[in-house]
Amino acid sequence: MPRITWRLDAPLTARATPQAVHTVRKLLHRDAHANLAKLLQRARPADAALLFEALAATERRRLFAVLLTEGLWARAAAILSELPDELSVALIADLAPERLARLLDVLAVDDATRLAERLPRERAEAALSLMNRAEADAVRELLEHDASTAGRMMSPVVYASNRAQSVAQAVQALQEESERVQGSLIYLYVVDDDGRLCGVVNMRRLLVSKPDTPLERIMDRDVIAVTTETSQEETARLIEQYHLMALPVIDTEEVLVGQVTVDDVIDVLQDEATEELLALSGVSVDERPDTSAMRSLRLRAPWLVVNLGTAFLAATVVGLFTTTIGKLPALAALMPIVAGMGGNAATQALTVVVRALALEQIPGMFRVLSKEVMVGLGNGLINGAVCFVIASLVFHDMGVGAVLAAALLINMVVAGIAGSMMPMILKRLGIDPAVSSAVFVTTCTDVGGFFTFLGLATLLLRWKGM
Amino acid sequence: MPRITWRLDAPLTARATPQAVHTVRKLLHRDAHANLAKLLQRARPADAALLFEALAATERRRLFAVLLTEGLWARAAAILSELPDELSVALIADLAPERLARLLDVLAVDDATRLAERLPRERAEAALSLMNRAEADAVRELLEHDASTAGRMMSPVVYASNRAQSVAQAVQALQEESERVQGSLIYLYVVDDDGRLCGVVNMRRLLVSKPDTPLERIMDRDVIAVTTETSQEETARLIEQYHLMALPVIDTEEVLVGQVTVDDVIDVLQDEATEELLALSGVSVDERPDTSAMRSLRLRAPWLVVNLGTAFLAATVVGLFTTTIGKLPALAALMPIVAGMGGNAATQALTVVVRALALEQIPGMFRVLSKEVMVGLGNGLINGAVCFVIASLVFHDMGVGAVLAAALLINMVVAGIAGSMMPMILKRLGIDPAVSSAVFVTTCTDVGGFFTFLGLATLLLRWKGM
Repeated sequence: MPRITWRLDAPLTARATPQAVHTVRKLLHRDAHANLAKLLQRARPADAALLFEALAATERRRLFAVLLTEGLWARAAAILSELPDELSVALIADLAPERLARLLDVLAVDDATRLAERLPRERAEAALSLMNRAEADAVRELLEHDASTAGRMMSPVVYASNRAQSVAQAVQALQEESERVQGSLIYLYVVDDDGRLCGVVNMRRLLVSKPDTPLERIMDRDVIAVTTETSQEETARLIEQYHLMALPVIDTEEVLVGQVTVDDVIDVLQDEATEELLALSGVSVDERPDTSAMRSLRLRAPWLVVNLGTAFLAATVVGLFTTTIGKLPALAALMPIVAGMGGNAATQALTVVVRALALEQIPGMFRVLSKEVMVGLGNGLINGAVCFVIASLVFHDMGVGAVLAAALLINMVVAGIAGSMMPMILKRLGIDPAVSSAVFVTTCTDVGGFFTFLGLATLLLRWKGM
Repeated sequence: MPRITWRLDAPLTARATPQAVHTVRKLLHRDAHANLAKLLQRARPADAALLFEALAATERRRLFAVLLTEGLWARAAAILSELPDELSVALIADLAPERLARLLDVLAVDDATRLAERLPRERAEAALSLMNRAEADAVRELLEHDASTAGRMMSPVVYASNRAQSVAQAVQALQEESERVQGSLIYLYVVDDDGRLCGVVNMRRLLVSKPDTPLERIMDRDVIAVTTETSQEETARLIEQYHLMALPVIDTEEVLVGQVTVDDVIDVLQDEATEELLALSGVSVDERPDTSAMRSLRLRAPWLVVNLGTAFLAATVVGLFTTTIGKLPALAALMPIVAGMGGNAATQALTVVVRALALEQIPGMFRVLSKEVMVGLGNGLINGAVCFVIASLVFHDMGVGAVLAAALLINMVVAGIAGSMMPMILKRLGIDPAVSSAVFVTTCTDVGGFFTFLGLATLLLRWKGM
């Protein structure tokens, strides 16, 4: 898909197009540092970061070194803050402590904190001790909050004015602070003499109010705020629910200590939306393709071992019918079709319901049940018909075809019921539906599939006098 | 998890707590319209919407009727814009055209459009013809854009000033327009005499600049904009990548026609993140639990029929070994363990890789391969050991235990390789990895599992002279 951004006077090389990557490689090869520096300075940091991502690890390190030797610290920091954390850490992990400290100094406090916590402890400490005192203290303070809290992800630098100030005074203060305070100006928070949050004024209100109006007359007192201990998920959900651009963070004394912006929580919201779906497949939201084999094994093995238990349970059901299978071994070939198709159909129903539960859409139980029975019947009839024809032809026996089709139909309905009801029931019982559902549901369809198919087959053989 | 919002003077009933729902039910029962109206007016629209969602459909309709009979049109509109579209449409579908028109008039144009397109055509037309002319025209214009484009989701009302204006003039215009233009003020867009977008000024810049500075001197010319035809996915990705709070929308003449804000695209970003994971389970991103049975069947059946084909393929492999199974029917009980566990392990690897591909993190193929082989070996050893012990004990035959364990180990490695490589290869071939991978991969683990297990078992029986 073409990226239809429309830009007035930005150079083409500012984008991570294949040509741009090619140009960078050529310049790197020629050691054309000045040209590379110019190119990286003209690109938007987010675009430069895409360029970095497109390069191989060694090229990336060389390109980053160019930024530092050319003295482009602010640019280097801006690109670091746009890169995925793994790549950023890889780029700065081997820097001398002085250089590292200088980079962290230029980074926004929240970005510096995110990188510092991923560095080896001694290296992070060495760099912190060489940093600008105020910046280092701010990073240390953020690091004291738990990893998954608003306190850890917030930006500790916010615009705030005293409630007694007038609009004109607040605007003047903003003008004076504007050099110091980075980041976008979205809301002006209003605090009392003790720094406690007591209101918020949006920019429109500030612009349209008379200069001598006191802030407390125009501020919105109905502020949605979180504490430093609020979870990042909860913070993200509040921002989403109330369509906020940013959310103030207060401490236990209600003192304003920071702000979380909407772009900070987009990742959290995406993780929230996928977490349950990943859990259905026995995958942790923390696993990426570059997670170490050892850690992946630890994350994945428990789910597989539990599934092994249910697989043995299903095997026990098959074991009840060894006499039947001994009489007609071809049944062993058809039996996984019934179980497998049931598993697939159940996974579909399960996925739809678990996703809805994750998004907090709680559908009516009876309505879902009757719908899933219908869908199961429909899919059972379609696939059952195909199975009847194929099995009857291959086995020259319409009895086998009929048994396969009937078992499939029954198991599809079982799949629809189990797949949709299991997560809803687990949720009511207070059990995480995503983690446990898949295991229970495939047990139902395996056991159900084997039992109905081999049971019907046994009746068929008996009826035939075998 | 408790919702830790901190509010200064909002009443408790303003939240969709169980108590609040109970209170509303009691008031509805008593027909206490005035109390209900007061309650809904004091709640934030997003909270009132949660209350509505928590009620049954008939209660919801009655509560909404209270808002209209009490003349709270703006409040009713605000709540409608916060509700999921299905619920909103259900609430307004039966209104008299005059009432419907009045509601749509009060709604923001983008919200009115979203509801209008979901109403039956004649009803929507009837309401549009009774609406305020300008508002109706604006809705009609948005409806002309394709459903999945930026033009359809944008808000057509934006703050813009001519480039020749001074900061003071722009601020004054904002003050005058502020009544007319709803929505948050994030960026001031700068246009030329023909209305063409030529720059953007953020609020901070506007506040700190001298009043007589012309906008063209302080505007940022490097604007990221989309056209009305840009897809919503692309629009969302740009907002995410550049950490924008809003994005201007231009027409083919580069004339500024609207704005998309970050809160508009959060749903799109969440759908993007989940779409591929849903496809892995054969589920469309469009399906919800309340999708009709017929439509669900149409969405789910094709995937199941394809899987039926691969199931028959696996059955054919089992069919090759009917002699072996005839000699030792208990093998039929163990065989699904190998295939099923392989399928589970493959799904884990597949999910990790497909998710990464969806988020455009493209990991190194060889690194992923070697990691997955390691994880497969690890899981194969763990589960193989368990299988060896159990099968050896149950069958009083270490040979059967060894065959089961070895087949499981091999199939776990096959699962890791197939699960991780298949999506990467499909992606390189330009095939959607999420839709097709699962089918191919489970075929690999089914065929691989049956073949290695029954093959090794055949060798064992032969070695035993059976």
